[in-house]
Amino acid sequence: MTINHDYIIVAPATGGGGAIAIIRVSGPGSLELCDKIFKARGSSKKVSEQDGYTSIYGDIAGNDQIIDDVIINVYRAPHSYTGEDSAEISCHASPYIQHKILQLLISNGASPARPGEFTQRAFLNGRMDLSQAEAVADLIASESEAAHRLAMHQMRGGFSGDIKKLRKELLHFASLVELELDFSEEDVEFADRARLKELVKKVKAITDSLAESFQLGNAIRNGIPVAIVGKPNAGKSTLLNAILKDDKAIVSDIPGTTRDAIEDTATIDGILYRFIDTAGLRETSDRIETLGIRKTYQKIRQANIVLLLTEATDSPETIHNSVKAINDQIKGTGKKLILVINKTDLAGKIHLENIMETLCPENEANCIFMSALSDEDVAQLKLLLGKIIEKERLTETNSIVTNMRHYYALNKTSESLNRVLEGLKTMVPEDLIAMDIRQAIHWLGEITGEITTDEILANIFKNFCIGK
Amino acid sequence: MTINHDYIIVAPATGGGGAIAIIRVSGPGSLELCDKIFKARGSSKKVSEQDGYTSIYGDIAGNDQIIDDVIINVYRAPHSYTGEDSAEISCHASPYIQHKILQLLISNGASPARPGEFTQRAFLNGRMDLSQAEAVADLIASESEAAHRLAMHQMRGGFSGDIKKLRKELLHFASLVELELDFSEEDVEFADRARLKELVKKVKAITDSLAESFQLGNAIRNGIPVAIVGKPNAGKSTLLNAILKDDKAIVSDIPGTTRDAIEDTATIDGILYRFIDTAGLRETSDRIETLGIRKTYQKIRQANIVLLLTEATDSPETIHNSVKAINDQIKGTGKKLILVINKTDLAGKIHLENIMETLCPENEANCIFMSALSDEDVAQLKLLLGKIIEKERLTETNSIVTNMRHYYALNKTSESLNRVLEGLKTMVPEDLIAMDIRQAIHWLGEITGEITTDEILANIFKNFCIGK
Repeated sequence: MTINHDYIIVAPATGGGGAIAIIRVSGPGSLELCDKIFKARGSSKKVSEQDGYTSIYGDIAGNDQIIDDVIINVYRAPHSYTGEDSAEISCHASPYIQHKILQLLISNGASPARPGEFTQRAFLNGRMDLSQAEAVADLIASESEAAHRLAMHQMRGGFSGDIKKLRKELLHFASLVELELDFSEEDVEFADRARLKELVKKVKAITDSLAESFQLGNAIRNGIPVAIVGKPNAGKSTLLNAILKDDKAIVSDIPGTTRDAIEDTATIDGILYRFIDTAGLRETSDRIETLGIRKTYQKIRQANIVLLLTEATDSPETIHNSVKAINDQIKGTGKKLILVINKTDLAGKIHLENIMETLCPENEANCIFMSALSDEDVAQLKLLLGKIIEKERLTETNSIVTNMRHYYALNKTSESLNRVLEGLKTMVPEDLIAMDIRQAIHWLGEITGEITTDEILANIFKNFCIGK
Repeated sequence: MTINHDYIIVAPATGGGGAIAIIRVSGPGSLELCDKIFKARGSSKKVSEQDGYTSIYGDIAGNDQIIDDVIINVYRAPHSYTGEDSAEISCHASPYIQHKILQLLISNGASPARPGEFTQRAFLNGRMDLSQAEAVADLIASESEAAHRLAMHQMRGGFSGDIKKLRKELLHFASLVELELDFSEEDVEFADRARLKELVKKVKAITDSLAESFQLGNAIRNGIPVAIVGKPNAGKSTLLNAILKDDKAIVSDIPGTTRDAIEDTATIDGILYRFIDTAGLRETSDRIETLGIRKTYQKIRQANIVLLLTEATDSPETIHNSVKAINDQIKGTGKKLILVINKTDLAGKIHLENIMETLCPENEANCIFMSALSDEDVAQLKLLLGKIIEKERLTETNSIVTNMRHYYALNKTSESLNRVLEGLKTMVPEDLIAMDIRQAIHWLGEITGEITTDEILANIFKNFCIGK
């Protein structure tokens, strides 16, 4: 590891606004650094004399001028987030004060932290593995219960324990195969081919299933994409507003969660849904009957779920044709269709029964007769959304990958293992098999961080926020 | 005091974004409340068993689901901000996590804090007087060194110690005068009229001078208003950009200090300046020669300083006339004029000397020959701004009032004391004099909070942010 982390880093750890701000300091000598700018109130205690996990109250001063009265929380290596001596300075949230304190720390020898540098140090000091470190950023960004649960699970170890174990087993076999190479003249076989094949198959089954979970994991993290399609006046905008209503009310009391920018997402029962291009939908005049408009196709392509909105006053044939058109479109893609027969309050009972008869059984299950004006009906639709995405699966968090980097490494592992299996079948030379096993071991190691390069680390941590 | 504060209050204390968020809990039983939702890692320690000024690491959980790993800082009455048992929960800054933790605390019996309620409790528990409490909000909002210094000074006692002392002396005299009323038949005089007059004069001199400082104090807090006027093409926008340049660079590394919204303010040498209607100025085509345009007058009316921008290539007469027009406008208002002869690089030496000759001596002092393209010249202009506003005065922070409420109370005090002096001169009945002294005592008490009503408190604290 060529990254030097012997110096002290500082950064604001809290966001803008608010009453309190935290400035984080970490690295060898951080506590002595704090001594230089801090004077305890009512005692002569020094920060560097404090035990870990204690706080001290006093003034930060520079050039004989008091900047603020603060509380400093003291953490001592290795019992801190970074594993180093660290302090958290809790000051008033004025931009001027924060700037002054940072300036004082920097002029006394600290360096401004790069994004994620605190977490990077935690990783480098063995406080967490790489997939755990990555989960910290996910946790901070989590907006829904499901995304939070996945991040929390990953931060607490997640699947990386399993991967480490499998990787170790592969390493064992790789050594045995490589040993054979040393004795290649003698035609010995240290590695039991049957057991190797079994192990490779086991590892591949796990990495395949993890890789397969990525689409879902990614959807959970970024919101499950739902396309609302339907002809104009079918009530798309009314329905969307009804779905978004509760969610907006819930989040309004937390600072920094203004929904203006992302008003077309909603958390329903702990899952984040992203409604695709709904803003455009509101003005667009695409006609689902003809399905000739490219925009609808595009929306469907991006979605996991297609919400087809029809009117209860439409003829059964119109509805049937619309359903068929969408079904043709999504066949074999794994996308799910929900058929919404809206405005039931405007249609007669017999007409509704006629519609029901034209539905084939498979559509019946994912069909809802409703009025977007009824809170009860909207709640039913939300339940149906949860059912469609198999909400239960999301609680088996062991097996869900949310991170693109992990997904890539898992796919690479599977490719390598495929070549190993192929090689075992076709009796290719040992050295090639050994190479492919080594490849798989490498990719598994990249997930947990057992193998890293500065470049990998730089790529991961550049996406963190400052102060974490 | 009819405000009940026996219950536990909770609120997020940090702003949106960032890596860490703090949730504040205060009130009797807060530590036991934390016990209900918190489990220490690696020990069975409880929050309520912790000493004050210590931290504890563990998990917040609700319904058997872990929400986050957090650090809880414990403070015990009376050694806390509010004077009550309090905790600060330091969690990951995800909106979801903050929301969940608040929800858990509230469902276990806490109430969401109103704006400023923590500081209000600090006041009610005698941790600070009212003018100190008000300074907390100013401190958090402070954007410049001068505003910060005033707020810090006020928070540490400021002039309220003096006011309390004067008020006590007035109270003493009021009692003596009222005693005379009880003995009114007997024509005794307990209160020495000469000494009373002397005291009233002393108090009035102080309250007058404090009230007088308000214009400056207010300007420091909100920025000293500077009007840049001048004919089109005089280089207003170039000059303004040159002035703003450094300041923008300085603040960009602190979150939450985006300057987009307030791009026409600049902190120069610790003082905040506010450039009036400069956005409009950039497009406007008002002509200073005629001074016939109402807009220019309006700008000047709002300003403490008028920056008149002329071109070095103008004729001396043109410049002279412009200066005279502005001087006529600001005569007797206390406003200051700075005459900027811009674009000296485009004018010949003899022409510049001609201009200089036409300036009367008083203008000469506040006149600068410069090019807005020269960093050195812009620095000279900044120095001149500091000189004009008598920057030194701003360091005598004892005597500067920044708060509109204090200003109002000081004026009311002076009015009452004027009536006392008038009464003493014209020998009005004792009971009227006593009433006026009581009035003055009342208004002084309102500043420090020795006299408060729920209404006053509600008005003060409603302007605080949540979590403070």
